[in-house]
Amino acid sequence: MTAVIDTDSPTGTEVKRDFRLIDSTLRDGSHAISHQYTEDQVVAVVKGLDAAGVQVIEVTHGDGLGGSSFNYGFSKVDEMKLVEAAVNATTNADIAVLLVPGIGTVDELRRVRDLGVNVVRIAVHCTEADITEQHIKIAKELGMEAIGFLMMSHMNTPQGLLQQAKLLEGYGADTVYIADSAGAMTTNEVRARVAEIVGGIDVPLGVHAHQNLSLAVANSIAAYEEGARNLDGTSAGLGAGAGNCPTEILAAVCEKNGIVSGVNPLMLMDLAEEVTRPLMPRQQVVDRAGLLLGYAGVYGSFLLHAERAAERYGVPQAEILLELGRRKVVGGQEDMIIDVAVELARKHAEAEGRTA
Amino acid sequence: MTAVIDTDSPTGTEVKRDFRLIDSTLRDGSHAISHQYTEDQVVAVVKGLDAAGVQVIEVTHGDGLGGSSFNYGFSKVDEMKLVEAAVNATTNADIAVLLVPGIGTVDELRRVRDLGVNVVRIAVHCTEADITEQHIKIAKELGMEAIGFLMMSHMNTPQGLLQQAKLLEGYGADTVYIADSAGAMTTNEVRARVAEIVGGIDVPLGVHAHQNLSLAVANSIAAYEEGARNLDGTSAGLGAGAGNCPTEILAAVCEKNGIVSGVNPLMLMDLAEEVTRPLMPRQQVVDRAGLLLGYAGVYGSFLLHAERAAERYGVPQAEILLELGRRKVVGGQEDMIIDVAVELARKHAEAEGRTA
Repeated sequence: MTAVIDTDSPTGTEVKRDFRLIDSTLRDGSHAISHQYTEDQVVAVVKGLDAAGVQVIEVTHGDGLGGSSFNYGFSKVDEMKLVEAAVNATTNADIAVLLVPGIGTVDELRRVRDLGVNVVRIAVHCTEADITEQHIKIAKELGMEAIGFLMMSHMNTPQGLLQQAKLLEGYGADTVYIADSAGAMTTNEVRARVAEIVGGIDVPLGVHAHQNLSLAVANSIAAYEEGARNLDGTSAGLGAGAGNCPTEILAAVCEKNGIVSGVNPLMLMDLAEEVTRPLMPRQQVVDRAGLLLGYAGVYGSFLLHAERAAERYGVPQAEILLELGRRKVVGGQEDMIIDVAVELARKHAEAEGRTA
Repeated sequence: MTAVIDTDSPTGTEVKRDFRLIDSTLRDGSHAISHQYTEDQVVAVVKGLDAAGVQVIEVTHGDGLGGSSFNYGFSKVDEMKLVEAAVNATTNADIAVLLVPGIGTVDELRRVRDLGVNVVRIAVHCTEADITEQHIKIAKELGMEAIGFLMMSHMNTPQGLLQQAKLLEGYGADTVYIADSAGAMTTNEVRARVAEIVGGIDVPLGVHAHQNLSLAVANSIAAYEEGARNLDGTSAGLGAGAGNCPTEILAAVCEKNGIVSGVNPLMLMDLAEEVTRPLMPRQQVVDRAGLLLGYAGVYGSFLLHAERAAERYGVPQAEILLELGRRKVVGGQEDMIIDVAVELARKHAEAEGRTA
């Protein structure tokens, strides 16, 4: 068990931490509030996280730098202003951004670096590490920490993820992350992936968990037990759909497990209750839609398409989603939804002796 | 791994199940709606659970038979009427009741038996199995399945719980349950308790989990892995405070783990979304209060008392609750709350060089 020594502690003394906590309330949480963060809200959340001892705070549009757009939803406040507000509000915590190649640009990365951002997470689908090479190298040239972030990691095998992680490491990534973006992994699936990857790379591994199966906290703890040394959370679990691993619960459960997070659970509980919950349009609940996504293991963006196809072709939405999960359909293959609905409708008709 | 064979399947064919699922929406969930269930609501929930293949449905005031009172809150509808409605609505599922010795009486147990209830859970604090002897024996004389139910099980050691379980077994209990009533156990704490108990008794063990640390589903799966063969849930997690293990998520996660529950996750998702959520006054969220209870490991009833003491003595509520947890204070010791608050106030004053 390697301890992370943080010499930037608020008290000036060394804080020995067993892992690094990255909070994404101001990035992944942005999805849940339709990217309507104000500068005041960003400052309040950053101050709360920073005071509680969180080491890295990610601030960007939910879809990363440049995400504010017709396709992904417009931000209320220009993300550069939000990033600048975060940098000015923090004392010890690093401010990070997310960059999805194809959405964010190198120019935007330079701009946030100039504002004082020193960590970038470069996020791609879990089989596409090869498109991160340029971005990782530029981030390193800019003097930033580069984290390779593999999304929808339940769609790749432990061995497949290790190969992707090795690519990221080879490009110069300082840290590799696997994200369970659909909250679709069982605890044993997380364990198998983490164990395989940490055994094959030299840089630290992180895990980003979602709540669709109500396993985000348990899976984060399991990831730590298998050797992950970065864990993600968001205040009050704020995030798309079922939400993320709640930072304040993760901190409390770490303490009960004897894992030193270096953050103060009570301060994080106060932040969640007094700052984050009041700005949430709805509380994070694992409702049918969220649970279905985790159960089927598909993208959140498929939900509405599947609902429409279900109505049009008279097939249960759940059946469409489950079949899409089995076929491991990825973002960009939305046309498959209609194919699947038509096929299922035909099967139903045949079973009932009707003509579709 | 012993499979439970259920010959009462709706289709007439044998359903092989790896464990028995007991749903407590209509008992533990009653707390969350201040015991205001109507007969129509009970019928709708029972029909949904029964159709989805749930084997046992618990229906009683949140505090069990006889709970409707000034102390525990009055039920909207007489519990005998609710129990009767449940018995009439079920096709395959057994209807169960909870009985807390000192609250419920043997007379009430006879009455529900006559209505068609065939399972009773006799619930006591995790160190007080010895007060269940009479009730277990009477339940057996009445021809009912008797389940000994040990509450607040985080407050006893694995070895201590095994001794309690042996007492229950000796009195004739058909099944023994440990309840993590405060949702305060880590997954490893659940594993240790289940492993110890199943190694020392011959009757099946069950685990009842709460969500205060967001671990209810993970802990239920871990309990199964260690040998528990009864698991509890409530629809949409309906229950006091942070709520219970959500039945529909547990069913989905079991399937993803290859554990055969014999229940239909999609039907349970529909029940949660279409029947249970609409009757909930608020969604189940792990808010500060709920998380504090799990973190400190204290009774829910202490929360309000601690809040009042915190205001009166100028000490943080969290500090009072954590100290109460360390002292393993149990229900009935509410006077300790003031003692603790006064003591903490004195310590704070001393530290600041003031007179308390």
